[in-house]
Amino acid sequence: MKLREVFFATSNRGKFMEVEALASQFGLKVRMAPLKPLEIQHENLAEVAKHAVRQVLRRLKAPVFVEDAGLFIEALNGFPGPYSSYVYKTLGVKGVLKLLEGNSNRKAYFLSAIAFAKPRLKVKVFLGRSDGVIGWEAKGESGFGFDPIFHPEGLRQTFAEMGLKDKNRYSHRAKAFRKLAEWLLRN
Amino acid sequence: MKLREVFFATSNRGKFMEVEALASQFGLKVRMAPLKPLEIQHENLAEVAKHAVRQVLRRLKAPVFVEDAGLFIEALNGFPGPYSSYVYKTLGVKGVLKLLEGNSNRKAYFLSAIAFAKPRLKVKVFLGRSDGVIGWEAKGESGFGFDPIFHPEGLRQTFAEMGLKDKNRYSHRAKAFRKLAEWLLRN
Repeated sequence: MKLREVFFATSNRGKFMEVEALASQFGLKVRMAPLKPLEIQHENLAEVAKHAVRQVLRRLKAPVFVEDAGLFIEALNGFPGPYSSYVYKTLGVKGVLKLLEGNSNRKAYFLSAIAFAKPRLKVKVFLGRSDGVIGWEAKGESGFGFDPIFHPEGLRQTFAEMGLKDKNRYSHRAKAFRKLAEWLLRN
Repeated sequence: MKLREVFFATSNRGKFMEVEALASQFGLKVRMAPLKPLEIQHENLAEVAKHAVRQVLRRLKAPVFVEDAGLFIEALNGFPGPYSSYVYKTLGVKGVLKLLEGNSNRKAYFLSAIAFAKPRLKVKVFLGRSDGVIGWEAKGESGFGFDPIFHPEGLRQTFAEMGLKDKNRYSHRAKAFRKLAEWLLRN
């Protein structure tokens, strides 16, 4: 059986590596396309991803997906949500911990939206969610973004304390990508 | 001389009222067009406004402007910047004060970008900036958004402690709008 190839439009090498590791399990070959589509401001990640993949498809004219993710913290009304990468860059992990100081409600979830497009197909969106809590301090060096303060439900480790393989057992992105991979294999 | 008419695409009544009060001084009639263009995620407000006004023009086909504003706090690396309205909605004034707790660098500025478009014209952008400091507590009930914690340079009052007329003497939005109005009268 010939290896199916699909592009992943991202400039985030951490994201790409996570997805690449999973893809091989499905007999898929993922190639990084370092395109930077304009992202819209929208509180629904699926809309952000759909809008972005349409732009990318116009340039690439080949099967491609984009992924948009966010960390939604209950006590902060969902902040930083769709703007997680901007908030990571400006406030960092410390800023988010400061906002939660003295707050015992640490509930949060990571959400990933993968939008897939190819010529003459309606854009397909796959969502993955990982529930958990925000820790009291940053721990671990792996991964990227808010990984050092996010503990998936029931685990003492943060995402940043796991290897890529373990993160892929629990992560929102892995869940969304598995749905995409299964769909690609059926279609 | 006939009154020139221009649309302001916004759903923010506070913004509209500020601009309307100024417009009459220039013999301009501003009409509110409650359209909601998609905004892009971009750290440059001018780009956000330009992108938005192009969409609005396609629907309205008449002279129109949009305005995008943000509060840029030095000690927070510019946060909340272009995402000020989202941050206002989720963290509010309290969240921003908490992020600055114990920080003596209170420097901040409000930036306003007005993008004007009409058929067969390249989009024009006008910027207005108001420098100041973030207070230690929220004060005042006027205005909207982060007005209760922003003191324009050298003033003890916050924007929210001023009437509309005074805010228009100092505000970023008023500065940007005056540039637009002067340009409209010359052209």
